[in-house]
Amino acid sequence: MRRTALRRLTTTPRVRKVAVIGAGTLGQQVSFQAALSGFDVALLDTTEKRLTTAKQAHERFARLFVERGEKVRAWRVPAESSLSPQAALQRISYTTDVDEACGDSDLLSENVPEVPAVKTTVYAELHAAAPSHCIFTTNSSTLLPSDFAAATGRPERFLALHFANPIFDGNIGEVMGHASTDEAVFEQVVQFARDIHMVPIRIEKEQNGYICNSLLVPWLNSALWLVTSGVASPHDVDRTWMITMGAPKGPMQVIDVIGLETVRNVFAHWGEVMRDDAAGKQMLANAAFLDAKLEAGCAGIKTGDPSSDTAKGMYDYPGPAFMKDDFLG
Amino acid sequence: MRRTALRRLTTTPRVRKVAVIGAGTLGQQVSFQAALSGFDVALLDTTEKRLTTAKQAHERFARLFVERGEKVRAWRVPAESSLSPQAALQRISYTTDVDEACGDSDLLSENVPEVPAVKTTVYAELHAAAPSHCIFTTNSSTLLPSDFAAATGRPERFLALHFANPIFDGNIGEVMGHASTDEAVFEQVVQFARDIHMVPIRIEKEQNGYICNSLLVPWLNSALWLVTSGVASPHDVDRTWMITMGAPKGPMQVIDVIGLETVRNVFAHWGEVMRDDAAGKQMLANAAFLDAKLEAGCAGIKTGDPSSDTAKGMYDYPGPAFMKDDFLG
Repeated sequence: MRRTALRRLTTTPRVRKVAVIGAGTLGQQVSFQAALSGFDVALLDTTEKRLTTAKQAHERFARLFVERGEKVRAWRVPAESSLSPQAALQRISYTTDVDEACGDSDLLSENVPEVPAVKTTVYAELHAAAPSHCIFTTNSSTLLPSDFAAATGRPERFLALHFANPIFDGNIGEVMGHASTDEAVFEQVVQFARDIHMVPIRIEKEQNGYICNSLLVPWLNSALWLVTSGVASPHDVDRTWMITMGAPKGPMQVIDVIGLETVRNVFAHWGEVMRDDAAGKQMLANAAFLDAKLEAGCAGIKTGDPSSDTAKGMYDYPGPAFMKDDFLG
Repeated sequence: MRRTALRRLTTTPRVRKVAVIGAGTLGQQVSFQAALSGFDVALLDTTEKRLTTAKQAHERFARLFVERGEKVRAWRVPAESSLSPQAALQRISYTTDVDEACGDSDLLSENVPEVPAVKTTVYAELHAAAPSHCIFTTNSSTLLPSDFAAATGRPERFLALHFANPIFDGNIGEVMGHASTDEAVFEQVVQFARDIHMVPIRIEKEQNGYICNSLLVPWLNSALWLVTSGVASPHDVDRTWMITMGAPKGPMQVIDVIGLETVRNVFAHWGEVMRDDAAGKQMLANAAFLDAKLEAGCAGIKTGDPSSDTAKGMYDYPGPAFMKDDFLG
């Protein structure tokens, strides 16, 4: 046992310093969560403005931690770990300088836009700046590690660590390599996911959509198709799932949380890819249905609070039907 | 308003007497629930033995009602309705005689095996025995009302009222007509569903699988395909869904509750029908995977108690992994 531990220590240094690349919604969350879990974190983005926005988000997370930390899965951890949101804020540095962010990093989490050309350019810069032992992880939802393995300059130390938004409540970390990812590196990322209080989920071979979206997309597609094709109302679809599964949310509520535009884009893309299949045809019809909803101003609730937000989506807010006492009879 | 109510009263008499045709799992539950809700019920089957088994099930339900009625959705009703399981048992008659069961019935629930020739024969007998005003409902999960509308002799008074097993916890009543079902009859069945403490779900046009199975089948298919194709373990698939959806059960647990043989049969059938689609190919692979599991003695937990049953399925019982503290990290 000691031998293995020693060997691993020499080949893959322990992760101490984490670089988070991209300060958007997920980058903000990942950087806070890593800092909260005791890692030194550098957050990199292209403008001071984006970094300022991220810093404000971090301060909001710190307040949330105090107000409802007990109810949040990734924050409800053993007492001995004594997470401190104030210490977390101290551990994060904000920078627009790639060398400063990556120069002494042991692991990085890439959260840049889902545009292949952008990712390729960014990986070249990161590879030049980061030490050779640094593990590169991507949080891409729609692209595969194999698409960028060469671009990272370190294919064997490159893989996906994918989070679900918001990562604090849906605290999974889907770990997915490509064919040449080093097994020891895979295991180290599994451990890192655990260290930042995510439940590690092992994806044993490349899979578009990982587990999470591989389950969600066909489920949302069939649910929305029932509405689009005039079989049932959105409310009755949700009622049926909630009652028979004892589930807190039905598919229409999930669409409102994800946002109708994102769901539309997924259906439009995969509907084209699968257009010869029944499911593909349903996706295209569902995308058209969502287009009409979006045009009518129904975009979903996203991060809003359903009891106060005035958004519209598959439900009307505030006080949507599913929050009323008689919704489930 | 009064005019409408009056008209309905003369054309479709209020339901007082219910005939339940077939004393299998669902017939047992439907007959008990209707009697519990105050209807006089006749339960019809072909042998005394099957009726005796049903009577024993009713007595078990009555004990369950006393022990855990508060936790059961269909039994947790307003205090003023004061459901009495003992009175319910008194309201049920058991018979092998079609005339006795149906002669004075206002509504019947057909729960006979899913074999078209059997249903056709049964409907002819029921039509001869039942008064002309009697509404015929089918609880068929896999066949459509239009397949039997002519055989019932009363197409406009024939439609589906479909329950989810067990109906006491998953208390929905999916109401689905065919093209010639009378709208007033549809509404009366919606009201009957409500009267027996089901949440009525309106299926506006014929749909194989109603809502419930239209959502379940693609979801279970994509979930099992992740396992069958070697992407992830059954446990990680369930963990991902449970954590990201805040759901009490993942798809593998649901397969164990439905039973692996039933799921296998659904995939084998629809896999053939959809064999040119990606989903159909996945279904056939999943059916083969379940065949191997069944051959290895893994049939699922079905109605067993996961904490004491010794069944095997996608999990090993008793004390399956999902009941352990560390399952969700």
